[in-house]
Amino acid sequence: MTDILTYGEILLRLSPAGQERLTDTGTLALNVGGAELNVACGAAQLGLSTAMTARIPQNGLAGAVRRRLRASGVADSWLVEDSSPQARLGIYYYEPGASPRKPSVIYDRGNTSAAGFRPEELPAELPVPRLFHTSGISLAVSPDARRTALELIRRFHGKALISFDVNYRARMWSEQEARPVIEELLPLVDVLFISEESCRRMFGRTGPLEEIQKGFAQEYGIRQVFTTRRTALSPREHCFTSLAYDSREDAWFSEDAYQRIEAIDRIGSGDAYVAGALYGLLACESVRQAVWYGNAMAAVKNTVPGDLPSTSLEEIQGILAAHHGEGSASEMNR
Amino acid sequence: MTDILTYGEILLRLSPAGQERLTDTGTLALNVGGAELNVACGAAQLGLSTAMTARIPQNGLAGAVRRRLRASGVADSWLVEDSSPQARLGIYYYEPGASPRKPSVIYDRGNTSAAGFRPEELPAELPVPRLFHTSGISLAVSPDARRTALELIRRFHGKALISFDVNYRARMWSEQEARPVIEELLPLVDVLFISEESCRRMFGRTGPLEEIQKGFAQEYGIRQVFTTRRTALSPREHCFTSLAYDSREDAWFSEDAYQRIEAIDRIGSGDAYVAGALYGLLACESVRQAVWYGNAMAAVKNTVPGDLPSTSLEEIQGILAAHHGEGSASEMNR
Amino acid sequence: MTDILTYGEILLRLSPAGQERLTDTGTLALNVGGAELNVACGAAQLGLSTAMTARIPQNGLAGAVRRRLRASGVADSWLVEDSSPQARLGIYYYEPGASPRKPSVIYDRGNTSAAGFRPEELPAELPVPRLFHTSGISLAVSPDARRTALELIRRFHGKALISFDVNYRARMWSEQEARPVIEELLPLVDVLFISEESCRRMFGRTGPLEEIQKGFAQEYGIRQVFTTRRTALSPREHCFTSLAYDSREDAWFSEDAYQRIEAIDRIGSGDAYVAGALYGLLACESVRQAVWYGNAMAAVKNTVPGDLPSTSLEEIQGILAAHHGEGSASEMNR
Amino acid sequence: MTDILTYGEILLRLSPAGQERLTDTGTLALNVGGAELNVACGAAQLGLSTAMTARIPQNGLAGAVRRRLRASGVADSWLVEDSSPQARLGIYYYEPGASPRKPSVIYDRGNTSAAGFRPEELPAELPVPRLFHTSGISLAVSPDARRTALELIRRFHGKALISFDVNYRARMWSEQEARPVIEELLPLVDVLFISEESCRRMFGRTGPLEEIQKGFAQEYGIRQVFTTRRTALSPREHCFTSLAYDSREDAWFSEDAYQRIEAIDRIGSGDAYVAGALYGLLACESVRQAVWYGNAMAAVKNTVPGDLPSTSLEEIQGILAAHHGEGSASEMNR
Amino acid sequence: MTDILTYGEILLRLSPAGQERLTDTGTLALNVGGAELNVACGAAQLGLSTAMTARIPQNGLAGAVRRRLRASGVADSWLVEDSSPQARLGIYYYEPGASPRKPSVIYDRGNTSAAGFRPEELPAELPVPRLFHTSGISLAVSPDARRTALELIRRFHGKALISFDVNYRARMWSEQEARPVIEELLPLVDVLFISEESCRRMFGRTGPLEEIQKGFAQEYGIRQVFTTRRTALSPREHCFTSLAYDSREDAWFSEDAYQRIEAIDRIGSGDAYVAGALYGLLACESVRQAVWYGNAMAAVKNTVPGDLPSTSLEEIQGILAAHHGEGSASEMNR
Amino acid sequence: MTDILTYGEILLRLSPAGQERLTDTGTLALNVGGAELNVACGAAQLGLSTAMTARIPQNGLAGAVRRRLRASGVADSWLVEDSSPQARLGIYYYEPGASPRKPSVIYDRGNTSAAGFRPEELPAELPVPRLFHTSGISLAVSPDARRTALELIRRFHGKALISFDVNYRARMWSEQEARPVIEELLPLVDVLFISEESCRRMFGRTGPLEEIQKGFAQEYGIRQVFTTRRTALSPREHCFTSLAYDSREDAWFSEDAYQRIEAIDRIGSGDAYVAGALYGLLACESVRQAVWYGNAMAAVKNTVPGDLPSTSLEEIQGILAAHHGEGSASEMNR
Repeated sequence: MTDILTYGEILLRLSPAGQERLTDTGTLALNVGGAELNVACGAAQLGLSTAMTARIPQNGLAGAVRRRLRASGVADSWLVEDSSPQARLGIYYYEPGASPRKPSVIYDRGNTSAAGFRPEELPAELPVPRLFHTSGISLAVSPDARRTALELIRRFHGKALISFDVNYRARMWSEQEARPVIEELLPLVDVLFISEESCRRMFGRTGPLEEIQKGFAQEYGIRQVFTTRRTALSPREHCFTSLAYDSREDAWFSEDAYQRIEAIDRIGSGDAYVAGALYGLLACESVRQAVWYGNAMAAVKNTVPGDLPSTSLEEIQGILAAHHGEGSASEMNR
Repeated sequence: MTDILTYGEILLRLSPAGQERLTDTGTLALNVGGAELNVACGAAQLGLSTAMTARIPQNGLAGAVRRRLRASGVADSWLVEDSSPQARLGIYYYEPGASPRKPSVIYDRGNTSAAGFRPEELPAELPVPRLFHTSGISLAVSPDARRTALELIRRFHGKALISFDVNYRARMWSEQEARPVIEELLPLVDVLFISEESCRRMFGRTGPLEEIQKGFAQEYGIRQVFTTRRTALSPREHCFTSLAYDSREDAWFSEDAYQRIEAIDRIGSGDAYVAGALYGLLACESVRQAVWYGNAMAAVKNTVPGDLPSTSLEEIQGILAAHHGEGSASEMNR
Repeated sequence: MTDILTYGEILLRLSPAGQERLTDTGTLALNVGGAELNVACGAAQLGLSTAMTARIPQNGLAGAVRRRLRASGVADSWLVEDSSPQARLGIYYYEPGASPRKPSVIYDRGNTSAAGFRPEELPAELPVPRLFHTSGISLAVSPDARRTALELIRRFHGKALISFDVNYRARMWSEQEARPVIEELLPLVDVLFISEESCRRMFGRTGPLEEIQKGFAQEYGIRQVFTTRRTALSPREHCFTSLAYDSREDAWFSEDAYQRIEAIDRIGSGDAYVAGALYGLLACESVRQAVWYGNAMAAVKNTVPGDLPSTSLEEIQGILAAHHGEGSASEMNR
Repeated sequence: MTDILTYGEILLRLSPAGQERLTDTGTLALNVGGAELNVACGAAQLGLSTAMTARIPQNGLAGAVRRRLRASGVADSWLVEDSSPQARLGIYYYEPGASPRKPSVIYDRGNTSAAGFRPEELPAELPVPRLFHTSGISLAVSPDARRTALELIRRFHGKALISFDVNYRARMWSEQEARPVIEELLPLVDVLFISEESCRRMFGRTGPLEEIQKGFAQEYGIRQVFTTRRTALSPREHCFTSLAYDSREDAWFSEDAYQRIEAIDRIGSGDAYVAGALYGLLACESVRQAVWYGNAMAAVKNTVPGDLPSTSLEEIQGILAAHHGEGSASEMNR
Repeated sequence: MTDILTYGEILLRLSPAGQERLTDTGTLALNVGGAELNVACGAAQLGLSTAMTARIPQNGLAGAVRRRLRASGVADSWLVEDSSPQARLGIYYYEPGASPRKPSVIYDRGNTSAAGFRPEELPAELPVPRLFHTSGISLAVSPDARRTALELIRRFHGKALISFDVNYRARMWSEQEARPVIEELLPLVDVLFISEESCRRMFGRTGPLEEIQKGFAQEYGIRQVFTTRRTALSPREHCFTSLAYDSREDAWFSEDAYQRIEAIDRIGSGDAYVAGALYGLLACESVRQAVWYGNAMAAVKNTVPGDLPSTSLEEIQGILAAHHGEGSASEMNR
Repeated sequence: MTDILTYGEILLRLSPAGQERLTDTGTLALNVGGAELNVACGAAQLGLSTAMTARIPQNGLAGAVRRRLRASGVADSWLVEDSSPQARLGIYYYEPGASPRKPSVIYDRGNTSAAGFRPEELPAELPVPRLFHTSGISLAVSPDARRTALELIRRFHGKALISFDVNYRARMWSEQEARPVIEELLPLVDVLFISEESCRRMFGRTGPLEEIQKGFAQEYGIRQVFTTRRTALSPREHCFTSLAYDSREDAWFSEDAYQRIEAIDRIGSGDAYVAGALYGLLACESVRQAVWYGNAMAAVKNTVPGDLPSTSLEEIQGILAAHHGEGSASEMNR
């Protein structure tokens, strides 16, 4: 039984291997990433059975992608390979920042194999998972990719929980374009991840965040609404917590923020949050645990290089215990 | 005065930084390359004044490209920047071989900024060089890129020498497509570089190479025809020489092959040959010297990583002297 | 359906990351390996469904081991974790050679979790594969490990093909100790891999290798006997071929050796041979193909660092075609 | 037209490539630097046309130096090569600090080719720039180097702006030696950079910095006097701002300090300040802008390894906007 | 004359070479360490004559160990080599942390050559030093190792000062096991290093630390008792000071803590403290200096990677001067 | 008792850390070397007690030098530190070759601390060794260095064996300058190392090498004369043997050359030969063994990076056994 199936685009991430800038470096660290891949990997590391469907080029890079999915425990059986001569893997170049210089991203994700993923190419035998997850990025990639995302959501609606992360990217589409597309989806969504900024700017909501979350839940029949709260004190020091509304209990859940997070690589921490929250929902059946696992996953993701989390259930439970004042107060696991 | 102006596509080249394969490596060496860039860099390193016109994306990678041109001494003033959101730099992934495993290349060069280089975007102030060089790759990139190549050849014809390297790439176009395009060009060409395989397969020529070269010269009014002769004993050990026909002297030039070349990176050695040959033509006004400089440049290029040569006039002259049995017999420059 | 299940010890392999010697280096390349793991990984890369059962420590290194199995496509579900405080992963230190300095290995594989693998700890749900493979190393590790190997061979005998590689290691046991243990096993073996040296020294066979192979087959009812033939011209240049006897056809199979193999890392090439040969037997049902795939796998393994092969069915078929004079004669896959 | 010409010594900078100390490391990062080179590179990166005149050895290191100048956009045509057998490039070894261990520098800059730069060797065709810049380091290098500096200042005085950075180095000369030499120069200087410590200790000035700056301007007829203000909270966390006096407006300019600068490499940040300030003067004709560009350049230089800045006009303008509360508040350029 | 002889286990320390986690990394930094080795190296770097006796395997790793001892100036003449086939060097894997993820250690130190060090194997010619040092770790390694430690303490008691660091490791033995063993030793000890936690938990002492230290001194006739005080604000930022009681003066010594220590690698900082304190006792004959040197050594050790300190007497004296407000206030040693 | 004391210059060797050329690389490998240091290190690795006297700067590099001497087992007690502000360590830049590009060396060894080593600065307590060794390089460094070499030779003559390696370097002095200086020394020399080229060109000897060697021995009363014979088939493949004349037996010794030496780094192989030969003379008291150990040391040195050998007596004896057809024929030490 597959716990979580995600759909999205898999990207190559290239960043300077040392501290030099992209213009100067002669060596790049190669990682793979993508919002929905990051979620699948994080959830798999916590012990859930996960799979991803995505379209990748049928060339020597396919092996590089597959190895990384499998290594994290994500089934690669539903990857679709694009054998056209123009097949390509999207790329993004990432340069870390150092205050006052911000991190920066250069996208090279046009005309990718992922953008050409049409619903007709979806694997026939795609399993019905306990939960299906995708994000707004997949809606923005291309009309084909969007149709495929919608087809999957409709196909699984009612059979699996539908989880959706708004994940707005201004470089990919405008808020005006995004809103009607997302609004059309929301009635099908069970679990929603949305930033406070998207609530207010894209959807024009006002008032306290608590009320905004509840408003979404009520209007669209959403079970849980999650919003993360990050403060970047500098490119290298972050704080992180989140707020969740559970419509079934009509209650909000939060906890004290993780302070002084040493951010080695902040990319993917939002996706790690989603992975942790989905673990809380599916494995613990608790929104409170979802918030706890989400926050811990996000905090720990910040401390490892690359898009993908690198952790385990045992480690996250140790982080949770320490954050809640339980367990060893030692400064080292020895 | 610009000695050589080249036109072509600049590519990012990504290859494993160590000995691991592309599927396994987590670190990539970043180089820039492209046939016409390689020629311009090689000729600049020998002391010629060179420039390149090419279209690159207006993003953080532009700096990486420009730094490398300038570092080799190639003027970057006639690079045109593509500010569209989809602007992208072509990429190729290169994995070195080890016998019996061949080196391999994965192209990701569709929809690049270079492919969208239309003649109308050519810089108005482009200087008339002593020699203009481009290659068949630039004709294959896209219809726009081809039109721009032809525009440049026509613009400079009669004012500058026109140098053309057939440089056939089966992944980019078929021999059937390529032949008429190239045939249309040949009457405008002064200096031709063509492989024996292209002579025989694309143009259907038969007989000894000497006669084939002379045939091209006579039919199209070409001054010199150059053909390299490489033997890859293994991915790491090569031999290299070449044959040139000079129509003005009605004579052929060659020399003993460089034996036991330790091929650290063979990519770009053909372009280094072109650079050396053009140096011989422009600086020494001698086809014999063109063959000598070309062979030495190609041999030395094999010994350095990346697409671009890394040498100097002084070094190449030392290599020539040693190859011809002059100079120090020492095994070390000390 | 699992095609191949292997049983053995998984080791950490540590070797200098650059060209410095072990005494001098401050950086080690970390790989995992072990004869039976190498076989499972190689076969999985060719497309077979493979799994491995082994006992590893339940600590932070378990994740490092599991990631590498999964990345190569080997199921890690039947790894057994040792939670005792003394749990440890065996290690070997490998220093590459350069003529006249030989490669060298330091073993640190006493008291490992693998040595404590008792039959009672075998997972209950272990699947019956099409073929079960182990090697003489697993018999030499410890009395417990030997009992577990024997238990597995007996359990699968008659239900699955039994494949056994003698793989004699003088550091682990003497030929006197090894012979009776292996002789006891041979009647249960369907596919035997044995070196010419073991035939002659451990088993005291004489005469041509062909007769020795046939002798083993007849005496013990073995279907196929495979013997590799490697010549190390230097630590970096090898030749490789093999000889197989098929008792059902009463025929021998061999082919011209791969010459001038550029040996970047020769460790594991014998295991890669086994993987290729088993692929030939299971997927092609041909001893001739077994020899071909085995030789190609071994040759290619030599060209990649680490114990594990890194290849694909498509690549090996390309190598085969080139070795047999078919396919592109190009020196590069472009 | 050359905007800025600088004169000074180019040094090789060698520092541990990782976190090990100089006594322990086996790998060094190679950079080039030198106060006046840093200024020329920084100004070129902002878009000014810059060149440097310096004397370097005519050996294999000349290429390494020239590549780096050209890569940053600084013309290398007025480098003079020293072909004597004793020709050498000065070196400094730099070891970064970590609190409470301070960064440290070892100089090996005696008897360099730069120290032997006599005025007679200055290139005849040296262009008259808009602004000529040198620093006190060039006066301290050797009597020859000092004579050459003075010759250049006198040659350009009245034709170009003369910019001078006191840049006192106690290891090179005493304050007693330095003062009369510098005092002799000051009447020829248009733009002065001087530290508060030099004002007070070398020149014995007292009172508020504002008055000291104005005093220099009035006594020597200097147009602008710039003084940086840095606080090193630790080797890795700095604050930076500056104060400038403009004699034409009889006004001072400053701004809030950049706080929490993550100092990856603080060497050269003072020179980056000079580059930014000269850009403000030449391109914006504004002392206020000079302070702004200077501070931003210095802050950003701290975040990149090596002596040379690595930035662009676009980036610095983004930093300025963010520092002044304009532009995107996002924590990432995406 | 040997100033300090230490006895203990030498371990290989393996940690990720970059920022990746142990499960993900393919490259390990190799260091050697061990509490008593760290002390010997630190004291040697300050100029004392030091030696260590330890049992190491007689294989290729012996050279790696010996080179590192000698490089730090510790005599390797009394290392005993274990030539048994099972000889092994203990290992620990160290993964640095990043808040909220703690650093972690995996031990692989069972059945080591060190654990088999029996008193009978002690070198006959072992010199009588001025001070002999060992720690509780050596008592916990194995019964043999403990007997050897006790034999050495008894052998040197009365002829040399006996220094002992309780250094409790919960992974190696329980507090119940440790207490009686240590209590048996204490009457032989002249200089005691003990953490506040061990005082309170293992020995059940209560009240202010000052009284606890004095209590140990009085009960067991110990000359000096040292206790470090570290605060880990995060895995990367520490504070450090210590408290010492001198029974001869019946006085306590401390000083203001080192603040904002940039902890690149905190392992071994406690041992560096011991090295500094012993230097203060032996070279300065001052408990106040012992505290000062100990604190400075510990602070500086935090700033270098690996177990071993890397410093010199001159550097430590500079750190002391700066900490006490003397010496240059410059932020760089230039 | 010190077996061998050497005198000479210690140099820093900087070479590209990867395969890039010196002009392109951003990372250098740092090694120390120098002919007489290489000899001392090689002999120490074979088990002799060795020391070196040399003059080095009293700065942060002294530690880097001392660590490397001690790590190899060479006593650093007789290094003299130069505390002058101009103190400097000589440097040479080494770029490996790849056929047809030769390796190259750039010297930066003027005005070094070694060049200022005057006899008056020799340590008073310098021990009388069994053998004193220096080379022609030390005579060429400077007049002071030459006087110190001569003083040492005279001081030890009659009390210790005097070993001298002509080691002619054309970059440092001419053959005309060198000959009389060396001729003056030869009557004091017991063991002479001289290349065939120096015999013929510097000393104008003719005829077979055997006769030339014997001539030196007879004319100057030299006990043994050693001449190496290397063939560089390419920068990466060498052959090596040598010829020795022993005047006491009036006999010559040689052996079959080591073929196919994989030359990772050939620098210092001549010095390794000297180390091996001196070991043969001092430890085995056999000129035959001197030739054997010398050849094996030189062959193995070629296989390790850096100037210094990295080996052990056990390893060299294994190489000897294999070269003479004894011992294991295995291609790996396992």
